[in-house]
Parts: sequence; structure tokens; C-alpha cells
Amino acid sequence: MKNIAVIGLGSMGMGMAKSLIIDGFTVSGYDLNPITTAALSEFGDCETGAEPISSASKFDAVLFVLVNAAQIESALFESGLDRQLSEKCIVSIHSTILADESKSIAARLGARNIRMIDAPISGGAAKAAIGELTIMAAAKYADMQAIKPVFDAIASHVYHIGEDIGLGSSVKTIHQLLAGVHIAAAAESMAMAAKAGIDLNIMYDVVTHAAGNSWMFENRMQKVLTGDYTPNSMVDIFVKDLGLVLDTAHGLKFPLPLASAAHQMFLAASNEGFGQLDDSAVIKIFKGIKLPE
Amino acid sequence: MKNIAVIGLGSMGMGMAKSLIIDGFTVSGYDLNPITTAALSEFGDCETGAEPISSASKFDAVLFVLVNAAQIESALFESGLDRQLSEKCIVSIHSTILADESKSIAARLGARNIRMIDAPISGGAAKAAIGELTIMAAAKYADMQAIKPVFDAIASHVYHIGEDIGLGSSVKTIHQLLAGVHIAAAAESMAMAAKAGIDLNIMYDVVTHAAGNSWMFENRMQKVLTGDYTPNSMVDIFVKDLGLVLDTAHGLKFPLPLASAAHQMFLAASNEGFGQLDDSAVIKIFKGIKLPE
Repeated sequence: MKNIAVIGLGSMGMGMAKSLIIDGFTVSGYDLNPITTAALSEFGDCETGAEPISSASKFDAVLFVLVNAAQIESALFESGLDRQLSEKCIVSIHSTILADESKSIAARLGARNIRMIDAPISGGAAKAAIGELTIMAAAKYADMQAIKPVFDAIASHVYHIGEDIGLGSSVKTIHQLLAGVHIAAAAESMAMAAKAGIDLNIMYDVVTHAAGNSWMFENRMQKVLTGDYTPNSMVDIFVKDLGLVLDTAHGLKFPLPLASAAHQMFLAASNEGFGQLDDSAVIKIFKGIKLPE
Repeated sequence: MKNIAVIGLGSMGMGMAKSLIIDGFTVSGYDLNPITTAALSEFGDCETGAEPISSASKFDAVLFVLVNAAQIESALFESGLDRQLSEKCIVSIHSTILADESKSIAARLGARNIRMIDAPISGGAAKAAIGELTIMAAAKYADMQAIKPVFDAIASHVYHIGEDIGLGSSVKTIHQLLAGVHIAAAAESMAMAAKAGIDLNIMYDVVTHAAGNSWMFENRMQKVLTGDYTPNSMVDIFVKDLGLVLDTAHGLKFPLPLASAAHQMFLAASNEGFGQLDDSAVIKIFKGIKLPE
């Protein structure tokens, strides 16, 4: 485990690539955005580019940190990358995708004797930047052992959920149910506080010292207090992730009243033109209130 | 501030009464349940009973820790207690009630020159037991100063939201929006994990180390993991509290999609006969899954 490619240098992938450079790996970082790859080049010694294919044979592991399964499909299969990777290479999928999508990717890689780890992540940009992500992984035990030095560089908590590919994605999907509902609930509560004439700074202070607190409330409502909706993670990510949650539950014929209501709130926000803002901008669907600007 | 009465010795009031005894106050504890008053007598030196009225004139402060406004109406006004309290006495209302109910109680006490503090609490039974509650209070600044030694004995965080009675209740009501939605979301996520065949202990471990965590998830899902629904706080408390949240929002003509969905979940649980179980028993409304017993 020496040559590591990171494909997708958004806020999560960038943090992971930097953590790997700091830990002494030979890192190659890829992104279609040249500003992003330039930023990684400036940070430390590494190869960067838009497409990994010409370097593919040297990689010991390829970490995919793209937004969705369609992007993985394009970057891994349609590009021909899968045919250039060596059999010693491990592909680790960190995107939030359906368990069934994860299984499909693993099956096609397996046909080429390439091993895959179903390894969704959580923790946000700040944790990614300091190598303290949480990884919820499904893979053969031996493959988990092989990739361990890489995961140790990017994560502080690594859970091996089981050997069956798809279990990691299922756990992540259910985790996103909570994350999405908590952001929407945080927005709903702060919007009502604004309507009731309560100072939002006091409301924030009380909640973060009481039993109504959540990781997301504490993290995201800081954005609402400053009125700065520069995205770490965008509204449209939760339009997608809560969509995955509901699709998974639909497949299981299982009802999710809260995830369903929260999804409608993110859809309303996206429909109003807030899709590319920080996900805390879901609060903007509430009218008749004055929020900090 | 020496003679303090605590009216209502449930899990919160009991902890508060004990904290006051430990801090050297002269405590009188009242509850209609003789088992509860006996437990307080055994804990330490104090007066106990079903009714405070014969001792009323000596109290410097009376703390109400009853379930709702109807109980306060009965214990404070219908009993005639308000006519026995001295003018130096401060009445502190710790129950979760509507801001309008809080204002009405304060106005009637004010007509007898008795001061009131609108002082809802949060933190749960465990924090009450160690004197580390969070208090979100509205009252005149001078009254907050007068009651400070009492609040210091029972709370680690005391917020003075403002001078207008009702602001404390509004903040608590909005806090309960979050608390109730978070319990229901925790239940929804763990129910879906059970349906998807994920080990609930692993799911709990992942969530509590990731961005999907909430105070309520961490606290209440322990009950689901052990299958022990002995109540700390009951399903019917959230039937009431989310009802207050929705009534308040209705009064403001303000929509609350998540609080509304969560309230329906607690109503469904209560309707199935789970109203007196721990509020985490809201998970029992999800069928077709196997939960720990």
C-alpha cells in the first residue's frame, strides 16, 4: 500500500488526499476542476490531473470520493479505468450510494479480479481535513487488513460492518436518514424561534447545552447565525441522500414518515433555487421570518 | 432563600429536591404519591407530604415540577395555596407549559404581589439527580438574582432569556420540538436498520461516532438495545409536549412539517397502548421487524 489515487477532490476527497500525503503515501489526486487539482499540488508533493487512466497500473488502491453512482460509473467503467487497474489494486468506494449499486460495482470489478471495499464515510469537511473521518466498511476481512494503513491515515473510527458488500452502504444510508432529518429539524426549530421573537443566538446556546442538541444542529446552525450559506455540503446532496434513504425503504416496503417529510423540505429548498447553497439553507423555505444576513 | 418547597417529586423534581438538601437548604417535598415522599424522607432531612398548604407561609421559594398547566392550576390556585404564600415568596414554574399559560399564572400571582419565574428545565433524570440541569428562565433581573442560590444548586447552565414571562416557556417549547423529533427520528432509523438486517449494536456505535448523532439518539436508543422500556420520560409526555409545540405554532400560523409528523408517531404509539412506556417505545409503531427484548 504505497501508491494511492484519490478520485474526486471535493471537501471530503481533498481532506483525504492531504491526510495521505501527510502520512507519507505516494498520492495521485484527480478532479475535473483544475482549480481543485492545483490546490492539492500546492499543498504537497503529488501527481494531479483530470483523468487517472495513464497512471492506473501503478495504483495499490483507488479511493472514489465522487458524488453519486453515475459519476463512479463514468470515472471507473465508461472511462476504461477498470481495464487498466492491476489485480493487486483495491478499489474503495467512499460515496454515499445504494447498497444495490455498491454490489453491482463490486460484481463487475470482481469479474476482473479486482477487490472492492464498500466504505462510506462521515464526519464532514473539518474531520476530513484532519484525518479523523468515520468509515463504515463492508469487505472481506483480508481486504480490510490490506487497506488498513490507508484508512488509518484518513479516519479515527473504522467500523467493519460485515463481509457482505452493501452493508456499509446500508449503514451509511440509514445514517443519512438521521443527518438529513436533524438538519431539517434544526432549521424548523430555529425558524420557529425567529417567528416567536426569540434571539437566535440564545436559542442556539440553550439547545447546544441541553437534551435537544444534535451534531448537525450544533454544526449547521452556526451558518444560520452568521447568514453565510457558503456550502460545505449542499442542499442538493440531501435531496440525493434522502432520496436514497426513501428508495431503499421503498425497496423494503418500509415506511419512513420523518425522512419523507424532511426530503420534501430539501426538495422545496432546491426548487426555490437554494440547491447549491449549504444544506442549512433549507431554513429559507420558512417564510414570514427575519434571519441573520 | 432558605426554605424551599418542591411540588411534584417525579424523576426531575426528586433530583432537584435532593440537590437542594445536599446544598443545605431547608427542603419540603410534596407529591400525591406516598411512596415518592417516603423515598425523599429516607434520602435526607426534610419535610414531606401530599399538600403544602399548612406550611405555605414559611416558604422563600416554591418550585413547581408538575406535568402540565392543569396540575399547576389545581395545586397552586384551586387548593388555595396562592392565598397562603407570603409576599417575599418566589414561585418558580419548571413544567413545560405554553407561554400563554405561563403569562396567565404570573398575572394572577402578581395580583397578590407574588413574583414568578418562568423557568423550564432540560437535561433528563440523570442530570437532575446530580444538580446539573439546564434552566431557560424568563423573569425580572432582580428576581433572577434572588433565586440564584437555588438555581445554582439544581443546574449547571442557567440562561436568562429575558424579562418577559413566557420567553422561557417559548424556548423550552422549541427545544421540545427538537427533542421529540430526535427521539422519533432515532426510532425510525433503528427500525429501518432492523428491517435492513443490520446489527443494531453496530448501528448505534457508528451513529454515536458520526455526524448523525443526537443527544436523544445516544441516550434513548440504549433502551431499545436492551429492550427495557421502563420509563424515565414517557411516550405520553411527548404526546403532550409536541402538542404544545404545534399549538404554539398554530397560534403563530407557522408550519412545522417535522414536529407534526413526529407528533403523529407518538400518538400512534400511545394509541397502541405504549403511552406509559419510555418515550423510546415509539419505535414499537414500526412493524415487521425484530427488536431486542
